[in-house]
Amino acid sequence: MSRISGVRLTVAAFLALVSTGAGWAQTASSGLPSDVRATASSLYKQALAGTKAFDIVRSLTVEVGPRPAGSKAHDAAVAWGLRTMKELGFSNVRAEKATLPHWERGAESGEILAPWPQPVHLAALGGSVGTPGDGIEAQVIEVPSLDAVDKLDPAQVKGKIVFYNVRMERAKDGSGYGRAVPVRGAGASRAAKLGAAAVLIRSIGTDNNRTPHTGAMRYQDDIEKIPAAALSNPDADLLAAQIASGKPVTFRLKLGARALPEVESASVVGDIPGREKPEEIVLLGCHLDSWDLGTGAIDDGAGCAIMMEAARRIGQLPRKPRRTVRVVLFANEEFGLSGARAYAEAHKDELARHVMAGESDFGSGRVWRIASHVDPAKLPLVADLAKLLGVEQGDNENGGGADLGPMAPARVPVLALAQDGTYYFDYHHTANDTLDKIDPKDLDQNVASWAAVAYAVADLPGDLGRAPEGQGRE
Amino acid sequence: MSRISGVRLTVAAFLALVSTGAGWAQTASSGLPSDVRATASSLYKQALAGTKAFDIVRSLTVEVGPRPAGSKAHDAAVAWGLRTMKELGFSNVRAEKATLPHWERGAESGEILAPWPQPVHLAALGGSVGTPGDGIEAQVIEVPSLDAVDKLDPAQVKGKIVFYNVRMERAKDGSGYGRAVPVRGAGASRAAKLGAAAVLIRSIGTDNNRTPHTGAMRYQDDIEKIPAAALSNPDADLLAAQIASGKPVTFRLKLGARALPEVESASVVGDIPGREKPEEIVLLGCHLDSWDLGTGAIDDGAGCAIMMEAARRIGQLPRKPRRTVRVVLFANEEFGLSGARAYAEAHKDELARHVMAGESDFGSGRVWRIASHVDPAKLPLVADLAKLLGVEQGDNENGGGADLGPMAPARVPVLALAQDGTYYFDYHHTANDTLDKIDPKDLDQNVASWAAVAYAVADLPGDLGRAPEGQGRE
Repeated sequence: MSRISGVRLTVAAFLALVSTGAGWAQTASSGLPSDVRATASSLYKQALAGTKAFDIVRSLTVEVGPRPAGSKAHDAAVAWGLRTMKELGFSNVRAEKATLPHWERGAESGEILAPWPQPVHLAALGGSVGTPGDGIEAQVIEVPSLDAVDKLDPAQVKGKIVFYNVRMERAKDGSGYGRAVPVRGAGASRAAKLGAAAVLIRSIGTDNNRTPHTGAMRYQDDIEKIPAAALSNPDADLLAAQIASGKPVTFRLKLGARALPEVESASVVGDIPGREKPEEIVLLGCHLDSWDLGTGAIDDGAGCAIMMEAARRIGQLPRKPRRTVRVVLFANEEFGLSGARAYAEAHKDELARHVMAGESDFGSGRVWRIASHVDPAKLPLVADLAKLLGVEQGDNENGGGADLGPMAPARVPVLALAQDGTYYFDYHHTANDTLDKIDPKDLDQNVASWAAVAYAVADLPGDLGRAPEGQGRE
Repeated sequence: MSRISGVRLTVAAFLALVSTGAGWAQTASSGLPSDVRATASSLYKQALAGTKAFDIVRSLTVEVGPRPAGSKAHDAAVAWGLRTMKELGFSNVRAEKATLPHWERGAESGEILAPWPQPVHLAALGGSVGTPGDGIEAQVIEVPSLDAVDKLDPAQVKGKIVFYNVRMERAKDGSGYGRAVPVRGAGASRAAKLGAAAVLIRSIGTDNNRTPHTGAMRYQDDIEKIPAAALSNPDADLLAAQIASGKPVTFRLKLGARALPEVESASVVGDIPGREKPEEIVLLGCHLDSWDLGTGAIDDGAGCAIMMEAARRIGQLPRKPRRTVRVVLFANEEFGLSGARAYAEAHKDELARHVMAGESDFGSGRVWRIASHVDPAKLPLVADLAKLLGVEQGDNENGGGADLGPMAPARVPVLALAQDGTYYFDYHHTANDTLDKIDPKDLDQNVASWAAVAYAVADLPGDLGRAPEGQGRE
């Protein structure tokens, strides 16, 4: 109602509003009860004044750092998660087993050999095969898109290095990522199909730093596996400029990447038990692993710090909410969602009692929108939460985060707090993903938002029903 | 006078202005003649509309790239300079011999071993000795300044790695550099004197990218040479955070750096001959070499592009200025000024006829101030130039640039166009010094400014006299 306070309504206008069926009388009746709202609002305001979240992510980045799937550091991150959640007062803190792929980068390098020799900065894409020890030396051909490759004559491609020069666009909602990233996942096999020797891509990132962006790629089963690496954006510019000269460009690529046997590791789970219905779960997720290049501050140390601190603050309340708030630090999001799949499998009988799930995995930018995937009848509740947070309400088609995907078949309702991602893809999956990229005040605003939302849902007399069939968008 | 056009002056105000002794009547008499001013102003305005400068620096970065002293690429840069100056219409284009040191970086790496193992990003300082092949493994002690090292007990330092954690401050005039950089030059010997095994410094730079800043260091003759490297700023944060835990921090440093025999290379010189006094020279300098990590776009490809294009535009005038405008692309500024010293020696009999020298070596930021080192009686002329460029007038103590230093004993007058250096030290001496960091419009404003200044001085009926005794500040 605050949106129209201070505005004088004519009777006709009033009747018109009521007749839409979406007026405030209905919103109030199906929205947040006032006592729940008051506590949620208080949690929100107190968190804005300062939280432990930055200390948590500092500890993870300083004491663990890079923690890719399969590495010893991933295990160190599990130990860190167990220790930290216990210190923060969580109950039932436990490691839940997950089987992880193990891929190692090894030494890598690239250089333009002709027409004008120069070294470049590149990074193998996650999952790429390596090159022979002395590298692959071949001519480079440039293409502007995935589709453009399919139209090439195989005779032009055979034995060449295909360079996908696709630039990601900056956007607050990160939408440029979805448009650019298929090149990373599918580019190698699409070029290998035509006989390419290797693939280079322009980094999927919005920066102009000499820090290439890695990220997962996938091979099609029936096609030869060829090496794939990302050039930093300035290096992609350089390669394109040499190609634009019209002279043949040759390149030497050396990747020491290799796959190793799978490894047993774990997700970390801890609870703030509910006072009335502890078996009903509000799940707050993030992922514990990072890529190997940076210290995983924004991806996803920030998300874990936000969720752990939001839940901890709920646990500090004199009266706990009705339901349990559970934090899950998912193992290996980046390399195939091992932790999320294992969680959904291990907890399959409980998922019907998961009344909400949310994930924070988009850096540390401020929350500006709440989206959802809930029973449409419950949208007024989401509208109330949007008002409480002072943010826009998004659509009801949101998957909430990659780690929530495996729970979607159980129709677990999702709330998604969209963060400002304007600068996220400057650092995402690069060596530059370090603690200094996080503003502690932004982190606090995220903690405030998630604490308010999680508390409100956990303490509702009713619930969010079940999500519609099908999975929301990532 | 244009500054008060349109303003009605009272007689009293007019007399007050004249009585200060700095009024325009006097300025006009010792300042720019109106025909010189008109042509300079026209050069200025036309350059703002667009120049070839960006194309020139693009060509240097794409076709040559990193070109450190002693490297084959430095020779490629000489060939590029000769070819490009000829193409641009310079006369007497020639290589002038200079003897260059040759230092190679080799492979390098660093990692924190304890308490929490993590790899870091570092770069050997220019001139550093290497480590043994298996590296140096030692405890790290942190100091906040050069002076702090001198106060340590040698027993605390012996066998340790000394980490200088000095943060450079951002400033438009780059003044933070002068305050921070002594650690880079002198840190190794100051620590070696107390028995240190190696030195790490926080990068002398204002960014928070994972791109360490190299730069020259010097050993004292009588002290053991120990390896020295710069950590990127995020890595310096990380190391400091581990040290702040109170646990002993050990580190492994591997530097493949080594000195090789000196190499003969050259500066590149070209002239726009004057119409009346071709033997009198207005020298526009920049340096041809770069550090090895980036492509040397801002340091100092930008400066060379600015000066070459400024002179070229003067050469396109229907009537050349009275004096010769000479562009010198100095060999090896970064590693001991070999080109500048060779030029001053080879041209020592001509330096008395160098009526002005200027250097562009501060990136591509906009000109905002003109400073000088000229006969104080000629300062009204500098004031006129400041008005023409629409910039502040700085002091008369400015050395103009490192490559002008060897000419200072001959009292060559200096004009210095200060550039906005707010972001220069984000990229300076890093892999991130690449073409994308340059805004072509900023480059055009530099070209406009130097073209106007160089033309005005080259066409003056009078001259700038000689500079005061002593060298201006860098």
